[in-house]
Amino acid sequence: MLKVGVIGCGYWGPNLIRNFVQLNESDVVRVADLDPDRLKHMQSLYPGIQTTSDYHDIVSDPEIDIVAVATPVQTHFVFAREALLSNKHVFIEKPIAASVKEVKELIGLAQKNRCKLMVGHTFEYTAAVRKMKEIIDSGELGKIYYISSQRLNLGLFQQDINVLWDLAPHDISIILYLLECEPESVTAIGSSHINPAIEDVAILTMRFPDNLIAFVQTSWLDPDKVRKMTVVGSKKMMVYDDVQPSEKIRVYDKGVELPQHYDTFAEFHYSYKYGDIIIPKIEGGEPLRTELKHFIDCIKNDKTPISDGQSGLRVVRILEAAQNSIEKTNNNVIPVIRNGDEIKLHKV
Amino acid sequence: MLKVGVIGCGYWGPNLIRNFVQLNESDVVRVADLDPDRLKHMQSLYPGIQTTSDYHDIVSDPEIDIVAVATPVQTHFVFAREALLSNKHVFIEKPIAASVKEVKELIGLAQKNRCKLMVGHTFEYTAAVRKMKEIIDSGELGKIYYISSQRLNLGLFQQDINVLWDLAPHDISIILYLLECEPESVTAIGSSHINPAIEDVAILTMRFPDNLIAFVQTSWLDPDKVRKMTVVGSKKMMVYDDVQPSEKIRVYDKGVELPQHYDTFAEFHYSYKYGDIIIPKIEGGEPLRTELKHFIDCIKNDKTPISDGQSGLRVVRILEAAQNSIEKTNNNVIPVIRNGDEIKLHKV
Amino acid sequence: MLKVGVIGCGYWGPNLIRNFVQLNESDVVRVADLDPDRLKHMQSLYPGIQTTSDYHDIVSDPEIDIVAVATPVQTHFVFAREALLSNKHVFIEKPIAASVKEVKELIGLAQKNRCKLMVGHTFEYTAAVRKMKEIIDSGELGKIYYISSQRLNLGLFQQDINVLWDLAPHDISIILYLLECEPESVTAIGSSHINPAIEDVAILTMRFPDNLIAFVQTSWLDPDKVRKMTVVGSKKMMVYDDVQPSEKIRVYDKGVELPQHYDTFAEFHYSYKYGDIIIPKIEGGEPLRTELKHFIDCIKNDKTPISDGQSGLRVVRILEAAQNSIEKTNNNVIPVIRNGDEIKLHKV
Amino acid sequence: MLKVGVIGCGYWGPNLIRNFVQLNESDVVRVADLDPDRLKHMQSLYPGIQTTSDYHDIVSDPEIDIVAVATPVQTHFVFAREALLSNKHVFIEKPIAASVKEVKELIGLAQKNRCKLMVGHTFEYTAAVRKMKEIIDSGELGKIYYISSQRLNLGLFQQDINVLWDLAPHDISIILYLLECEPESVTAIGSSHINPAIEDVAILTMRFPDNLIAFVQTSWLDPDKVRKMTVVGSKKMMVYDDVQPSEKIRVYDKGVELPQHYDTFAEFHYSYKYGDIIIPKIEGGEPLRTELKHFIDCIKNDKTPISDGQSGLRVVRILEAAQNSIEKTNNNVIPVIRNGDEIKLHKV
Repeated sequence: MLKVGVIGCGYWGPNLIRNFVQLNESDVVRVADLDPDRLKHMQSLYPGIQTTSDYHDIVSDPEIDIVAVATPVQTHFVFAREALLSNKHVFIEKPIAASVKEVKELIGLAQKNRCKLMVGHTFEYTAAVRKMKEIIDSGELGKIYYISSQRLNLGLFQQDINVLWDLAPHDISIILYLLECEPESVTAIGSSHINPAIEDVAILTMRFPDNLIAFVQTSWLDPDKVRKMTVVGSKKMMVYDDVQPSEKIRVYDKGVELPQHYDTFAEFHYSYKYGDIIIPKIEGGEPLRTELKHFIDCIKNDKTPISDGQSGLRVVRILEAAQNSIEKTNNNVIPVIRNGDEIKLHKV
Repeated sequence: MLKVGVIGCGYWGPNLIRNFVQLNESDVVRVADLDPDRLKHMQSLYPGIQTTSDYHDIVSDPEIDIVAVATPVQTHFVFAREALLSNKHVFIEKPIAASVKEVKELIGLAQKNRCKLMVGHTFEYTAAVRKMKEIIDSGELGKIYYISSQRLNLGLFQQDINVLWDLAPHDISIILYLLECEPESVTAIGSSHINPAIEDVAILTMRFPDNLIAFVQTSWLDPDKVRKMTVVGSKKMMVYDDVQPSEKIRVYDKGVELPQHYDTFAEFHYSYKYGDIIIPKIEGGEPLRTELKHFIDCIKNDKTPISDGQSGLRVVRILEAAQNSIEKTNNNVIPVIRNGDEIKLHKV
Repeated sequence: MLKVGVIGCGYWGPNLIRNFVQLNESDVVRVADLDPDRLKHMQSLYPGIQTTSDYHDIVSDPEIDIVAVATPVQTHFVFAREALLSNKHVFIEKPIAASVKEVKELIGLAQKNRCKLMVGHTFEYTAAVRKMKEIIDSGELGKIYYISSQRLNLGLFQQDINVLWDLAPHDISIILYLLECEPESVTAIGSSHINPAIEDVAILTMRFPDNLIAFVQTSWLDPDKVRKMTVVGSKKMMVYDDVQPSEKIRVYDKGVELPQHYDTFAEFHYSYKYGDIIIPKIEGGEPLRTELKHFIDCIKNDKTPISDGQSGLRVVRILEAAQNSIEKTNNNVIPVIRNGDEIKLHKV
Repeated sequence: MLKVGVIGCGYWGPNLIRNFVQLNESDVVRVADLDPDRLKHMQSLYPGIQTTSDYHDIVSDPEIDIVAVATPVQTHFVFAREALLSNKHVFIEKPIAASVKEVKELIGLAQKNRCKLMVGHTFEYTAAVRKMKEIIDSGELGKIYYISSQRLNLGLFQQDINVLWDLAPHDISIILYLLECEPESVTAIGSSHINPAIEDVAILTMRFPDNLIAFVQTSWLDPDKVRKMTVVGSKKMMVYDDVQPSEKIRVYDKGVELPQHYDTFAEFHYSYKYGDIIIPKIEGGEPLRTELKHFIDCIKNDKTPISDGQSGLRVVRILEAAQNSIEKTNNNVIPVIRNGDEIKLHKV
């Protein structure tokens, strides 16, 4: 039975606690938070769990095997670092840390102390995203031309990070998981309307090898809740609509074909293909449960987590490049952050 | 009775012909096209109309009052110029011409010869867009923060212009009509997948005065047909979904408020407003009919068309700036085209 | 070239005229209507067509081969009868006539005078309904358990017939076309709210052989426009949603299976199957054009129309039975109209 | 602190347990079920709760104040009766019991022993249904013409009751709650396809005073999950779509008006009104929590529950009448069950 300590029981922490409690191979022994009301509420739900306002009670508790961190991103590094120094396995909510530098240090520490380090890229553990990967890997879609993703809704505004850091980690981690490669360049355009220091609307563009492009549109200011990703391939197209309760993925037998050769410009014609649409059945189950079971399995059997520190690093590298692009935008240009810049983006 | 000659009866021309025929104050006397099959088909539908493969038969016919141009954009200038030189009133499909230079010459000619020049920004004549303008002008939405528009579908690929020139004129003309101002800067990111010389996916960003930003996403490669525009204001938000057969506009009583002052960063809180949604009734009617009636009214009563040459110019100026931004993109930067550049963008 | 005379150019007649005009093998020579404005409008659209307020000018015109009737149902019989007596081929809008007696007389006359008699069950000529029939006939759905259909919207109220006579002919003709058999019994429940003499809401129940049941719900008083038919089979299920612009049919790989035998009631278990959903591609094309081409083909090549007089009779027999059921409802019972009653319902 | 014993922790029982645990004024002390696995699972979730396979341990426990029954409907009466005889307050899942006779005895016992008896008509405690009632009571819809409800999906098949007893209690309780009156007559048509003894598809018709009619369509065999209720009034119309995550209610400013008088049949015209649609904001919150808080409040402050025994009786009376109608259907008639029959239906 792995003993878990959870730091942070605000928005997402309670889900971690519930799942660690319900899994047969783990148990939550202590929860830390600065807000006594949250601690009290946790204790009312799980009378057997101890609470503390001092995270040291968790990272230094020799009984604890796993430290799970569900706090604002700026604090991830400190908590995770101390936990790793105390030889705990560490699970951190996405994004794994606030900078490439921080992530690299955590990865190094985990390697050195032979601890498992995993980031909560939950979507990589959903049946829908796995089905998408299965379809892409089968070659059914042909060559992938582009991916366009939208993650929009009204709130929840963050006070310390912009909308890209808040929402785009989901889309980025899904896209990297699907494509198994990293972008060659990153550009971002952002705009602030509520808090002048924090972008609340932003579009991220990633250029991948082989002319593949991906757009991620994020907003905290949209009246509709949208979570939609379109994957356009040379043979078929696929839409993942996560707002749908059951029909999350649609595969369209649609495409465009350019004839191999043509003599004159006037003869230049495209042929369109319009065929059936298939909505594959997606198995249910709570992704967070799958994710945490996977973490426990990696600990018990010394495996590398799918969303390990390197996976977290790839996402933060893109977020940092995007942030850079937004900040360096001047009157004349929007910078493209790419290979050769201080932020290295390269193929996996 | 105004006599009309129509150049081009391929994709959109037949709609012009049908409407000019059905209006009481106009009649179509002659149609020109290079494709004899199209001419034959038009004659089978309207036995009274003469046909020709030579557009000079139209621009030089002294009987004709109005020349309507529904041909590929590269040809607009030549046909419109000759018609204006022959003192015809000219109606041109969007975009009005292929460059700022061309549009300016047409505007000058129309002024000189006292002819009416109008561009077919059809959406400015729809009940839905007019309802949106009415709502915005009433102040109901508060200060406009941003507009995000999507115009996506599979095909129809153009052979001579990219997806921005093909689809974005609709969004741009709607946005300029709603805001009554021009962007201070334009950026565009495009990507080519089917024909390497022609972008088939593109995102246009326009920055307007007072921190208002607008995004226009276009694609010829999307499996879903999407025509959606979101207008986010400080008080309310509005979504225009043109794919809906009747419920095209939704006004959301949603918003975010930032408190006037706060002492510490920790006290910083937003308040969200979630209220009713209203779907206003939109009157029906074919917009093209409204548009052409307006053109006839402008001719008869010497008025300036809503979508006059200047309106056409404003749209082409943005398209040209966007094209410039796409073409000048290099490894390091995406250019922002703005005041001071060769392409002037300024307030109306 | 078959010469057509059309009686009635109110709501649906203009569509008949347009299609007969556009088909290569037919031409409209004369149109009759009591409303001079409608006649004038038709003449403005088709200057070559003669108009009359006296239908005798059509049924007695020796030049005319086909008489098409698009008038209120009470008048169908008189116009069709005279046309058949004058040896015209007759096309009648649905329902073919106002009573079983009338339909039988028209069928007899058509047989005697060797004229083609066809009723406008347009849906039997749509690609969607034909795709449904193809799927059912392939056995993919297994044994059909039940069909449930809804045809709801606000208006158009009829002044002379109730909502069942107005809307249900579509559903009934589709269901009979799909199943190729007639119901053994018919029951209907109706309710009048606006005009006390005319039901504006009604549910029709048809019991077919082999325990197959069909429900048809109709309303002139529903805020939503609904045109939806669900076909539930033992292996798969199918939904036809005619309000969808392109995705009209969905085939669900869903089902319920009862185990062959079980020892005790407590052991009694069902197994559910949840699989993919397929949205087959439906070809476009105007069904009315397909329908009228079929009529012309039947005339030219002496074939029996798919929606011939017998098809019209089957639909009217059910409508009459339903009307009977509604009218004979008393405080205690809703009559089931079935074999043995004056209105015979039997297998085809 | 009220002590609760729960009988049945299969499908719905766990929700009762969770809510009674989380409420401040109640606590669950013991849970009974015949399935040891379910008991074990409950104990893993709530280590402080005792379990038993003998319900007598609950009804006879002097420490227990409230007995909550979440078992198959046939067993409700026995458990509730014994609990009431032991002076417990009793909460029973819907429908309250299997027959009018049983419900009457429970009501009598509760009155005699001064215990609170409440049935889990959960929808009466939802914000959406309460909003609907508020709108109807305000007179905004005008006179109610009819209500049409659909509750369709694939499974869960019940082994002991048909689809009406399983699903229609929701619709019936909502409709009675909205209208505050009982139907004058009930008719039902049902059909069995999977298990020949149990109807899996059924339509219930209720006629209320003043020409108001209500239809409830239920199915265990539909591929789509549908939970939709349409309320048509003389002034406006309202649709409640419970499948929508947030936009559950729409009020349509649509209607039909009949002119007061008209001279001839030909002058007879309807006027339609098409106006805005309003989607009122619905407050969130778990209805079951509201429901159980209300029960506790009724116990503490000696109030009558909104969904008391009489409310349960009204629903069972209609279900019994419907069952009667289905069973007495013969070849010729579907019985209408109404006043004067053995099953009395009368105004509240």
